[in-house]
Amino acid sequence: MKEYKNTQEAVAELKKMQERMAAYSHASGMLYYDSVTGAPKETTEGRGHTMGIISEDSYRILVNEDTPVLLDYLIANNDQLDENTKLEVKELKKDYDETSKIPVDEYVQYSILLNEAENIWHKAKIKSDYAMFEPYLAKIVATTIRFAGYLDPKKKPYDVWLNEFEEDLTMEVADRYFETLRAELVPLIKKVAKSKVKIDDSFSHKNYALNKQRKFSDYIMNVMTIDRDHCAIAETEHPFTINFNKNDVRITTHYIKDNLVSSMFSVIHEGGHALYELNGGDEFMYTCLSGGTSMGIHESQSRFFENIIGRSEGFTGFLYPYLKKLFPSQFKDVTKKMLLLAINKAEPSLIRTEADELTYSMHIMIRYELEKKMISGELSTKDLPAEWNRLYKEYLGVDVPNDKEGCLQDSHWSGGAIGYFPSYSLGNAYSAQMLNAMKKDLNVDALTAKGDLKPIVEWLKEHVHKYSSSKKPPEIIRICCNEDFEPHYYTDYLKEKFSRIYELKD
Amino acid sequence: MKEYKNTQEAVAELKKMQERMAAYSHASGMLYYDSVTGAPKETTEGRGHTMGIISEDSYRILVNEDTPVLLDYLIANNDQLDENTKLEVKELKKDYDETSKIPVDEYVQYSILLNEAENIWHKAKIKSDYAMFEPYLAKIVATTIRFAGYLDPKKKPYDVWLNEFEEDLTMEVADRYFETLRAELVPLIKKVAKSKVKIDDSFSHKNYALNKQRKFSDYIMNVMTIDRDHCAIAETEHPFTINFNKNDVRITTHYIKDNLVSSMFSVIHEGGHALYELNGGDEFMYTCLSGGTSMGIHESQSRFFENIIGRSEGFTGFLYPYLKKLFPSQFKDVTKKMLLLAINKAEPSLIRTEADELTYSMHIMIRYELEKKMISGELSTKDLPAEWNRLYKEYLGVDVPNDKEGCLQDSHWSGGAIGYFPSYSLGNAYSAQMLNAMKKDLNVDALTAKGDLKPIVEWLKEHVHKYSSSKKPPEIIRICCNEDFEPHYYTDYLKEKFSRIYELKD
Repeated sequence: MKEYKNTQEAVAELKKMQERMAAYSHASGMLYYDSVTGAPKETTEGRGHTMGIISEDSYRILVNEDTPVLLDYLIANNDQLDENTKLEVKELKKDYDETSKIPVDEYVQYSILLNEAENIWHKAKIKSDYAMFEPYLAKIVATTIRFAGYLDPKKKPYDVWLNEFEEDLTMEVADRYFETLRAELVPLIKKVAKSKVKIDDSFSHKNYALNKQRKFSDYIMNVMTIDRDHCAIAETEHPFTINFNKNDVRITTHYIKDNLVSSMFSVIHEGGHALYELNGGDEFMYTCLSGGTSMGIHESQSRFFENIIGRSEGFTGFLYPYLKKLFPSQFKDVTKKMLLLAINKAEPSLIRTEADELTYSMHIMIRYELEKKMISGELSTKDLPAEWNRLYKEYLGVDVPNDKEGCLQDSHWSGGAIGYFPSYSLGNAYSAQMLNAMKKDLNVDALTAKGDLKPIVEWLKEHVHKYSSSKKPPEIIRICCNEDFEPHYYTDYLKEKFSRIYELKD
Repeated sequence: MKEYKNTQEAVAELKKMQERMAAYSHASGMLYYDSVTGAPKETTEGRGHTMGIISEDSYRILVNEDTPVLLDYLIANNDQLDENTKLEVKELKKDYDETSKIPVDEYVQYSILLNEAENIWHKAKIKSDYAMFEPYLAKIVATTIRFAGYLDPKKKPYDVWLNEFEEDLTMEVADRYFETLRAELVPLIKKVAKSKVKIDDSFSHKNYALNKQRKFSDYIMNVMTIDRDHCAIAETEHPFTINFNKNDVRITTHYIKDNLVSSMFSVIHEGGHALYELNGGDEFMYTCLSGGTSMGIHESQSRFFENIIGRSEGFTGFLYPYLKKLFPSQFKDVTKKMLLLAINKAEPSLIRTEADELTYSMHIMIRYELEKKMISGELSTKDLPAEWNRLYKEYLGVDVPNDKEGCLQDSHWSGGAIGYFPSYSLGNAYSAQMLNAMKKDLNVDALTAKGDLKPIVEWLKEHVHKYSSSKKPPEIIRICCNEDFEPHYYTDYLKEKFSRIYELKD
């Protein structure tokens, strides 16, 4: 058992521990990044071998018999710590306690279950055979409920998991949020479907040479003021962003020959994530407070750039001459207006990942309702497909033809991520509220129309990015917006925008 | 202090230790690979932070108080071990003993010295100012001599270092080798210089589009039978090969627009390294016996493909129609013969890394002689430039205009790698001896002319690759060639080839 001479020595130990955690996270992040960008196809086994060892060693940096001694010593001497160190101790204590609350054998059993479940889910999805997957989902739901009891027996199980994925999020907040969406968006989506405006986006599916699309990515990243000396772009199947530290961020995209906008919006979206990381506070480097504070706030940054900036009339007008010059034949008969409409085509559909800005959150709302009911016991996993299909009909007006395009479409539940979906949609809502606040300081529309994004990025840096993980999501919203989270900014934004696009009356 | 119940338990511990070493080597290899392929420019600091921690932890996997107990236990129970495990124990014991022979404080001091020396060397090279670097080289030489005494006081210091870089290599063997080169090649190079054959390779410096060069790389790798599911190619400044394990190998190249052959021979060279790793024995995976056995044998494989195959008349003829089709305008007036001559143009020059097949080993011979004299004390570091320049004049007939293009050109000595250079040249000599042996089993010329390299690769797999590090270099040569290393195969090969190319009459 370790003993500490003084607080200084214990703080040094704490910093060293976090530096090691950062290093191991960098190394395993690197292995992951390589695996989905440059690695040859048949190299999974050797990488799995390495990652198993690295992640076990990494886990032991935090979870060992010395850590509680260190953390308890620092908690006892909390008054001698500076503010950031206090936060680090709090954060690490929480992480450590969580790992010790779930009995090791149950944790191992669950890992084995998830491994099997993901494998079976893959097969079930291909065959569109929910019955194959149902017994696994039933066990996952049961374990999720049981583990919630270990983590915080005082809270309702679903609240425990919402909080795991988006700190301080509760069903109370989420219910109010989704109720607002339901009331405002379901009617709006129906109106849009009946609009006389019919959007033809066929020009965006002409042949767009990959090398020119690559050039366009560089252009977008420059306009977004992304520092290329600290941020690279690579190609992958499913685009994502990864940060090894605040000075080394990688975004990825996927180029499709007959789809101009797919990679374009991937780059803008991932660029938003990248800016959050690149602009984080220097003082948090190599500590547990580095990096974005939550999935929801992260998504607010990516969606801010993708939708609020990227799909705006002003930015479309700014990009138009560049695109017309880069792709003269494909853009021969394309007007600014046509480009704006093409990237804002809204249409209820079956698949979440392909949904447009207007209908996206409906997909999340459906999943939220289903998760809530499964965790409360109100909905049996056996009845999931029927309920899924009923909600898709009710909210989006679409008929689900099979489970492959229905409740088997996402991998999340097979990986045990119940409570994760809401943060995707919250990001959108946060971003609309941020826009409202930003507009008090900046002429956002004028800047966007000029492609002058620097003041916008600076505003986000000052109000969001620089805090890294040192503030929780609700604190960030308060700092940013001078009020608590309010869902109506998001629905107002969507109503205003899509009424304009689809020329809706009243 | 650990105790072992039985040999089985100790062997399991030994395997686990090696698996961890392999994992850490994979992780840090990945970080290195990324740093010179896809990483953004200004990311060195964060990577340094991670690599420092990973390499310290990696070092401690071997160097800790349990390792000698484990190894001694296994040595005491050696008769119960299978052959490979015996070799692993021997290898690890040697590695462990070496780390414990050099006093820690001297080792740390030396690391600091090397760090400074590399930094100063960079600056000195830019300024072409040897005097700046000389005091550092003097200290490096002195430390090299002192450390050799720690490692093996019974051997001559330079023998210790030759053996470090190429196991079982001695000055006796190297002297005989370089004496043969001196006697045979110095006159040959003079004859070539006087030949009436003047080679015009200007066509190879036309504009070669990078995308077509990339396509050509894929073609070459296919012809070499490199399994792309286990071997990727990336782009970098200074081409190299790295293996994460035998099923995950990466080669790299550097495309130059106005130089067709630069990347072409990089790909063939690195492809030779890659085949050695890809064809290693499965039974050595995740052990210290995995990977190529030495730098010299590795270089024999890369040079075999680069020079013996890649620059042969047969292979040139095989590639010619492909190149003519890929680059019709650049190859409009180019004949097979012109291509063969262009890639075999031999000319004494100043820079080792740009030297041709014929003169390359002269650059190494000069460095060998200088190292030997510096380590024996016969040559002071102060007198190095004069002696360097004298030898370049004597062996290659060239005047060294400055130290930048003279004794400051290579980074090796600033990094403490004294005794490393000979293995570069030995690789060439090994490959010529291997060719001689291979010709007893295969019609190498006919296969090469058809581009049918599979039987050649299979032969190398059977006689070299499959042993990975389980056999030392001299054993590999004996297995391969049924005799000990003989330098004359190499000089005979060069004499025959360049007499033909340059139409020399004896």
